[in-house]
Amino acid sequence: MARYAQTVERLIEELGKLPGIGARTAERLAFHLLKATDEQAIGLADAIRDVKEKIRPCSVCLNLTENEVCDICADPRRDKSVICVVEQPKDLLAIESTGVFNGVYHVLMGHIDPLEDIGADDLTIESLVGRVKAGGVSEVVLATNPTVAGDGTSLYLASLLGPMGVKVTRLARGLPTGGQIEYANKSILTDALSDRREV
Amino acid sequence: MARYAQTVERLIEELGKLPGIGARTAERLAFHLLKATDEQAIGLADAIRDVKEKIRPCSVCLNLTENEVCDICADPRRDKSVICVVEQPKDLLAIESTGVFNGVYHVLMGHIDPLEDIGADDLTIESLVGRVKAGGVSEVVLATNPTVAGDGTSLYLASLLGPMGVKVTRLARGLPTGGQIEYANKSILTDALSDRREV
Repeated sequence: MARYAQTVERLIEELGKLPGIGARTAERLAFHLLKATDEQAIGLADAIRDVKEKIRPCSVCLNLTENEVCDICADPRRDKSVICVVEQPKDLLAIESTGVFNGVYHVLMGHIDPLEDIGADDLTIESLVGRVKAGGVSEVVLATNPTVAGDGTSLYLASLLGPMGVKVTRLARGLPTGGQIEYANKSILTDALSDRREV
Repeated sequence: MARYAQTVERLIEELGKLPGIGARTAERLAFHLLKATDEQAIGLADAIRDVKEKIRPCSVCLNLTENEVCDICADPRRDKSVICVVEQPKDLLAIESTGVFNGVYHVLMGHIDPLEDIGADDLTIESLVGRVKAGGVSEVVLATNPTVAGDGTSLYLASLLGPMGVKVTRLARGLPTGGQIEYANKSILTDALSDRREV
């Protein structure tokens, strides 16, 4: 089988290791990089290198940061007594974009998933327990995904944190604003009914 | 709007410049690289850098190579009197994989496309003409894609090379082996009829 020059083959192979990038796409991307200006291609190479060198978890909440402590944890205006627990930095960003939460965060870096062999020890739960034990925390808001794995992780956290005397809450469940009852599934409607509020 | 650390934002931006990679995919890839081992991520960064530093066009046929002249042009067993003209290195590889062509190649690096503002001067046509003029070439096989742009490029090349006394051929058109007449379109059937052969 005829092959490209070794360097090109290696780039195709490395690109093909990325999630969702198959052999054909890897080839297309490699040729794009070959055609691109040196500046563009080296820009990407440097960005990858920089991220691996400079980005690390915040020593308090484990959010991604270039410093010892992330901007949110370092902000004196944030309420350190309320910790919102999220699975991923992406979730933190989504909640942050609403602008309605003024507490701090804790990033679990995943969820408990026995099928994927991810246990409580693989997450940053120990460090969360440590923060609560250190005192000054009045409420922990569990903001894991509304999925089986997310709910399971929240249940585990609630069983762990509850006995420590801290108030443990979770995000509300119900109809998504902008959605239609007609298209809501059974679990959404069940949540919406059981959590109904007086108006 | 909340944002990731600057280094992460830059990586997402650089990844988003790749063809077919949107903002969401770029974010997913960036997080994959963040989670990946240093070795994996730096492996990709180095592969990109290597390709830009080491890969260059063969000085004869413009195929991609790490040397001054590509392996095919440097091979004394290849027939230098037959040049197969292709649009891209990918096409060269496809033809090479059949194992039935023993001549050498010339890579145009694209096709003439007035809509995309790609003219004859943007391709490596001058260098092809130079090879034919230098002598020793008995046949030029035009192997551009069977598309409007590919056919147009071939017609232009034929009008340029024909008067130079070299035999100019093009790849056969007809029914694709393994296909079904029922599903062949009008242009394929027209080609198949007009190029029919005695058996």
